[in-house]
Amino acid sequence: MRAAADALDAALDDLVPVAMEESHLPRPRLTGEVGRTSGQLRMFAAAVERGGVSGLVLDGAEPDASPVPRPDLRRMLVPVGPVLVFAASNFPFAFSVGGGDTASALAAGCPMVVKAHPGHPQTSRDTARVLRDGLVGAGAPEGVLGLVEGVDDGVTALQDRRIRAASFTGSVAGGTALHEIAASRPDPIPFHGELGSINPAVVTSAAAAVRGADLVTGFINSFTLGVGQFCTKPGLLFLPVGHGLEDALAEATGAGTGPMLHDGIRGAFDSGVERLRKVAGVDVLAEGDGDAVDPRPTLLRTDVATFLAEASILAEECFGPVSVVVEYDGTSELLEALDRIEGSLTSTLHAEDDEVERLGEVVTSLAARSGRLVWNGWPTGVAVSWAMQHGGPFPSTVGPAHTSVGVTAARRFQRPVCYQDTPQAALPPELRDGNPLGLERRVDGVVTTS
Amino acid sequence: MRAAADALDAALDDLVPVAMEESHLPRPRLTGEVGRTSGQLRMFAAAVERGGVSGLVLDGAEPDASPVPRPDLRRMLVPVGPVLVFAASNFPFAFSVGGGDTASALAAGCPMVVKAHPGHPQTSRDTARVLRDGLVGAGAPEGVLGLVEGVDDGVTALQDRRIRAASFTGSVAGGTALHEIAASRPDPIPFHGELGSINPAVVTSAAAAVRGADLVTGFINSFTLGVGQFCTKPGLLFLPVGHGLEDALAEATGAGTGPMLHDGIRGAFDSGVERLRKVAGVDVLAEGDGDAVDPRPTLLRTDVATFLAEASILAEECFGPVSVVVEYDGTSELLEALDRIEGSLTSTLHAEDDEVERLGEVVTSLAARSGRLVWNGWPTGVAVSWAMQHGGPFPSTVGPAHTSVGVTAARRFQRPVCYQDTPQAALPPELRDGNPLGLERRVDGVVTTS
Repeated sequence: MRAAADALDAALDDLVPVAMEESHLPRPRLTGEVGRTSGQLRMFAAAVERGGVSGLVLDGAEPDASPVPRPDLRRMLVPVGPVLVFAASNFPFAFSVGGGDTASALAAGCPMVVKAHPGHPQTSRDTARVLRDGLVGAGAPEGVLGLVEGVDDGVTALQDRRIRAASFTGSVAGGTALHEIAASRPDPIPFHGELGSINPAVVTSAAAAVRGADLVTGFINSFTLGVGQFCTKPGLLFLPVGHGLEDALAEATGAGTGPMLHDGIRGAFDSGVERLRKVAGVDVLAEGDGDAVDPRPTLLRTDVATFLAEASILAEECFGPVSVVVEYDGTSELLEALDRIEGSLTSTLHAEDDEVERLGEVVTSLAARSGRLVWNGWPTGVAVSWAMQHGGPFPSTVGPAHTSVGVTAARRFQRPVCYQDTPQAALPPELRDGNPLGLERRVDGVVTTS
Repeated sequence: MRAAADALDAALDDLVPVAMEESHLPRPRLTGEVGRTSGQLRMFAAAVERGGVSGLVLDGAEPDASPVPRPDLRRMLVPVGPVLVFAASNFPFAFSVGGGDTASALAAGCPMVVKAHPGHPQTSRDTARVLRDGLVGAGAPEGVLGLVEGVDDGVTALQDRRIRAASFTGSVAGGTALHEIAASRPDPIPFHGELGSINPAVVTSAAAAVRGADLVTGFINSFTLGVGQFCTKPGLLFLPVGHGLEDALAEATGAGTGPMLHDGIRGAFDSGVERLRKVAGVDVLAEGDGDAVDPRPTLLRTDVATFLAEASILAEECFGPVSVVVEYDGTSELLEALDRIEGSLTSTLHAEDDEVERLGEVVTSLAARSGRLVWNGWPTGVAVSWAMQHGGPFPSTVGPAHTSVGVTAARRFQRPVCYQDTPQAALPPELRDGNPLGLERRVDGVVTTS
């Protein structure tokens, strides 16, 4: 994995220009993304090295246990087998051929086939070649990473008996269709889909009064970041009635953005915004510049009554630089509105420290419908670490309740095996007496490295 | 959970006679099963108490991290929501209303609805009442445990939006059908099915020569235990050609068994044995006594050529006291046969210690197709502990790769939530600074209780 990371870094100057051409994303963003991607591979490598992704558990024999003696049991997570990864369009590196799913599969010990996203075909081919060369050069088998292109080949691979798990990042429609294909195989396999997410953000009256200007800047940056093409983009902002931030929002939204990933996404954005604008009770709070190349950043506004009546439209993700401000009048109206929101990757709360106690129900509601609760920040940054959770209730995620970012993402591509009364020489080294590799293991219920 | 366990133990004398009547299982077996069931509830309670099922992970903020500061991230596993449990017939307590799935759901913090198995309806109702009284008496909400009966109500519950995960123990046909229903909901939910398992067992020439008589006794006990109605029953025994154990096997199989759970299972057993006997190249190695009440324990025999030709019949689970001895001629023939066996809950290997090195490929093959590898023992005992794995590749398990027995079974009914930069007072106590509850937590990558 470190060889793959090194190979990726070394190829930076070749990879980035192709990705710029194909994705219309700027050089600094893509350069940073390659660094994130290689850093992610190294983080997983370090976690593997200390036994952190192997789930090692040893229960000693209890020959005198009643009613029957208990055998010696030693359990670890093993690779599930070849994995199929459907790459995303919006991160040509971090969520594509060399991204989190690939790093997870490698950390789990699985070979993989990546279905390239058509938005950046040459970047995909180049990345696959660079990674494969790095991996094979470090001793991995030739078949460690394959690439397929096109919907038909992706579906064929998903139905192949040799594929033992799949992951996907993309739309609700695409993800649920593939999930059903995986589930209706003669031998169903786990399908880990990261689909759509509206990512509600809530601002209290106190927070709006104390730091309204900062909130406006942060929010505009967040919903327009990457031209609004982040799965964690805040698509709903709940502001208290009488917040007085209209002018600040209008001014900050004035700047343009840059082109979207491809024409299909741009078309969906334009029609999505049109659909939102047509809802009776929704008006335009602020608009930025836009033209045939750059989409127009758009901030809409409505009240809770309208939101409740039209939640199926207003609380559905629209990819791109658009968000809806919902003005709420008091906590109970806010709670009623939150209750209509489906599962999200994230939710965000801006509040003052002395408000924590009275916000109990709001916190509970936000945590119940998301995988990550952000306080006094914005959700568009996703740190790669042990504790990160990138996955929430449906439709933000379909399949087993795991994460697609962070160390525990490897668990998606593993299955447990238990060795009972097995001779030392036949045990994997990870499970042998004396912990020869110095790994983290749960022994008789207690985690230890000795 | 301890109150539920106490209530179950206190009701032992009322519950067991009803279960005897409904399941035809003998008193000592059912009495032991209640003890296993209450013990299981207490084991989960202890694991919850030390934080062992909460998956607590804390990553400290890194304000100077490059390219962007890293926030404070704290992750835990929370209840997925109301769970639906489809109970099994073969363990009226341990895999039914108060069984492992119920204990898992309670450990995860989920309320649940149990779909009773029609094989023991009154036992199910009585157990549900006893458990509910115990739980509610200890402060749990009234709705903590509901019971539904009948296929239609089970399917209706599986399609109910409020149900957030389901588990099942039973047949491949029933389990895959329910799995598809769960996957094709408008909001698909995780479905954890424990289906059919053939549980291959392999004996080497050396083991057969050194301790053939013990092996025969152990094997007969295992495949007839509980009238062969264990999901871990060894349904295939690979013996080396020329093993010389024919007479011992015939003699040991001579005893009768006792009645099966219900007429449907008995009918399926009789027709299943008939189907196996009709395969050209299969003969009867040994038969026990049988009549209209008690099924006839049956041991069939074939060679690898026949097994390869008819694996779809011979390697399919047949519930009840029947097993097939496959005589193999050398390791490569054995490996060829193993390669035709689908996923199992367990696999078993009887070998001498000095054979370990030459058996590498056999061990790899057995571990690749099962969740638990048993050495020099028999698979029908399933200890409830941290390291136990009860779940293997399809068809033994459908759904996410978890276990249905042991502490980590609770993970089936949990989902991760991450709190970012959250004030102490708004954090769950499990995640607060200073570890006020003294729980096991991974802090900056290292597991600690301080």
